[in-house]
Amino acid sequence: MEVAKTIASVRELVKAARSRDQKIALVPTMGALHIGHIALMERAVKDCDYVVVSIFVNPTQFCPGEDLEKYPRPLDADLEICEQVGVDLVFTPTTEQMYGTANLTWVTVEKLTEPLCGRLRPGHFRGVTTVCAKLFSIVQPDIAYFGQKDGQQAIVIKKMVADLNMPLHVVVCPTVREPDGLAVSSRNQYLTEQQKKDAALIYKSLQNCKEMVEDGITDTKSIIAQMREILSQAPAIKIEYVSILDAETLQEIGSVDRLVLAAVAVRIGQARLIDNILVDVGEQ
Amino acid sequence: MEVAKTIASVRELVKAARSRDQKIALVPTMGALHIGHIALMERAVKDCDYVVVSIFVNPTQFCPGEDLEKYPRPLDADLEICEQVGVDLVFTPTTEQMYGTANLTWVTVEKLTEPLCGRLRPGHFRGVTTVCAKLFSIVQPDIAYFGQKDGQQAIVIKKMVADLNMPLHVVVCPTVREPDGLAVSSRNQYLTEQQKKDAALIYKSLQNCKEMVEDGITDTKSIIAQMREILSQAPAIKIEYVSILDAETLQEIGSVDRLVLAAVAVRIGQARLIDNILVDVGEQ
Repeated sequence: MEVAKTIASVRELVKAARSRDQKIALVPTMGALHIGHIALMERAVKDCDYVVVSIFVNPTQFCPGEDLEKYPRPLDADLEICEQVGVDLVFTPTTEQMYGTANLTWVTVEKLTEPLCGRLRPGHFRGVTTVCAKLFSIVQPDIAYFGQKDGQQAIVIKKMVADLNMPLHVVVCPTVREPDGLAVSSRNQYLTEQQKKDAALIYKSLQNCKEMVEDGITDTKSIIAQMREILSQAPAIKIEYVSILDAETLQEIGSVDRLVLAAVAVRIGQARLIDNILVDVGEQ
Repeated sequence: MEVAKTIASVRELVKAARSRDQKIALVPTMGALHIGHIALMERAVKDCDYVVVSIFVNPTQFCPGEDLEKYPRPLDADLEICEQVGVDLVFTPTTEQMYGTANLTWVTVEKLTEPLCGRLRPGHFRGVTTVCAKLFSIVQPDIAYFGQKDGQQAIVIKKMVADLNMPLHVVVCPTVREPDGLAVSSRNQYLTEQQKKDAALIYKSLQNCKEMVEDGITDTKSIIAQMREILSQAPAIKIEYVSILDAETLQEIGSVDRLVLAAVAVRIGQARLIDNILVDVGEQ
């Protein structure tokens, strides 16, 4: 496994792989790798010949007051994980390397970035799409892998790739969960044991949405009310949003009459946690 | 020479060229090809093995009320020119083909797009950078060619390519001029013979700027006043701007103490004409 800190060396190594006719994968991460990332990497190793993992805590996707400084950066452990999974190249650029040209250029996706986390984290998705556009240009992967856990992000990235005709495929992998349903996240590290127990209610509320739809209840107001009810069982949970949206346009809908994204964001103690599921009215 | 209307067929043809280890050039145009474009294409033919010319009147770079509808589209003559110059592939997409996915994604370059044409044509550069990002992703050229005539555009595109780490080089070719100095432009077609004569004052004013700097006059206010004086010799000329800016940051400066962009935009009759020159204080 190679570790590259510079854009130039990544380009060189990937070019060599391509000249060997290898299929290139990119798994963009902010490090603090967990079993969710491992699932993405394993999928990449299965699909492709040359797997690149980027580890970069991207400052432009953090809003003022967020956890940029304290975001975990266990680089040695991350590299160990990459090695074990069979990754070929880890790209660990500095902020200087990524934004050294006094960046003035932004990639933005309209509309899809307005609801949910877009409303609560202004500028967040602009940072995500811009850094992904940069990583895609640096690595030029055939396939890039993202997790369904960041559901809105996956939808936004897919739209960017389609709209800008970027020459790659985006694969979105299922959310990996703890046995109690809690979606695996680097930010779970901020939780105490009790908070972790409370956080299991997030997935419970999402499952409840699915069950209500399966029972023929389609009125989103009623479903959301019951989801909030479940979350309120833990007073430590502060709800940021509970939403049911058209899974393609991310627009609010009154009735679950198509594929929808049920999405929850909460704060528990130091952590901001998000989760979502796709619910299809026809999947019973 | 091949002519392709679809993104898929362009990708296929370019892929074949790349598999032959050919160096790929892209000359993005809006058609109505003239000797300025021919100079770009000839340079591309000289530098590269496989030259792609795109002909697409990009609606997103026109502002409301501009000449989108009447912009000349002499496709047969354009193809004839491409053939004669030795172009390998002409890409002539429809608007549907380029923006068929209900585009929500934009590439924007801040600051550099604020002065000059950016101020007078809101949204123009966002349309230019977005369509160029798309064309770069579709063709994946090694080198893309632009004219110095659209000086701000060249600076903005270069910044976008640098900031987003796009894997290509941008080559900016000198402005091609009529014998009287008028910069060649597709929009010169809108001019009567008298208006063409008046339009020669644009280059005369730019040359005057250069001469004043060579004579040791560096105060931009004095230089701009004299440039305006020259332009006012033709009452048909309506000045949009006469500016002297830092050639890298495009910020206004009081004194010509570095490489500057002297830029003029005017309206004459039906036409909006722009021109510029780079002036270096040390080039005497």
